[in-house]
Amino acid sequence: MTDKRHLSSCEIPLRSSRRRAHRNRHYAFKSDYTWKGVKVERYKQKGDDWSDIIRQVLIGASGETTRFHVRYFEIQPGGFSSFEKHKHEHVVIGIRGQGRARVNKKTLVVKYLDLLYIKPDTPHRLSNPHSEPFGFLCIVNARRDRPVPVKK
Amino acid sequence: MTDKRHLSSCEIPLRSSRRRAHRNRHYAFKSDYTWKGVKVERYKQKGDDWSDIIRQVLIGASGETTRFHVRYFEIQPGGFSSFEKHKHEHVVIGIRGQGRARVNKKTLVVKYLDLLYIKPDTPHRLSNPHSEPFGFLCIVNARRDRPVPVKK
Repeated sequence: MTDKRHLSSCEIPLRSSRRRAHRNRHYAFKSDYTWKGVKVERYKQKGDDWSDIIRQVLIGASGETTRFHVRYFEIQPGGFSSFEKHKHEHVVIGIRGQGRARVNKKTLVVKYLDLLYIKPDTPHRLSNPHSEPFGFLCIVNARRDRPVPVKK
Repeated sequence: MTDKRHLSSCEIPLRSSRRRAHRNRHYAFKSDYTWKGVKVERYKQKGDDWSDIIRQVLIGASGETTRFHVRYFEIQPGGFSSFEKHKHEHVVIGIRGQGRARVNKKTLVVKYLDLLYIKPDTPHRLSNPHSEPFGFLCIVNARRDRPVPVKK
């Protein structure tokens, strides 16, 4: 088993490297925040530094040649991602419930359709102190560096 | 005045090239589908081939170094974008109302949070035959080719 403790919520490696044909696609949204044709990856195990997150790779796992990947993450109530930094930028767009983002020393509330831009090398962590799931799109460069854990 | 007839809804040039400092940002969403701190560009003029679209550049106009841009477009009832193709890929995510996408010879319905991936060189057009605005995120590579109009 891979030690996931130091992987970001956004950087967990793809389980499947199978590349599908390069074709137009329409992923229909379903009311449970899944998309028809998109695999749900569940990470139930808790690490030292992150917990209770699921991921769906919407763009980037199926042979697209975009310079970016689009992923949907959902942090369950009480869950959080690792506190980390990296050179690549993050764009976060809230689409389900609401959560918090610690960005450097600030803590921000991320509500529905709020947009967060995290510049390079900024320590950050996303968390969900609420009773409903917190779901967000996270857009990153396709080619990107690995996150580095940051001490609290 | 620039002739906008052959510009895509997604390729209308930025009016301002002013680059703000590279900093973390939190753009709060407002109920009228604007974001605090993001400029709304209104294109009321109708061209031969597109009409009634507004644009907000969420990521890409403020000094970010991402390899992608994130924009919000809103097509008013009866409006449509030009029928065109280009080498760069489009990712469209519906977030307000619903609309239609013509992709090659197919017509698809784009509903709330549906995701559309349009591969390179595919003729496409977005339209809104409904009575409510149709709003969507459109994510593209930062460096991209100009669209080429396609005959119907």
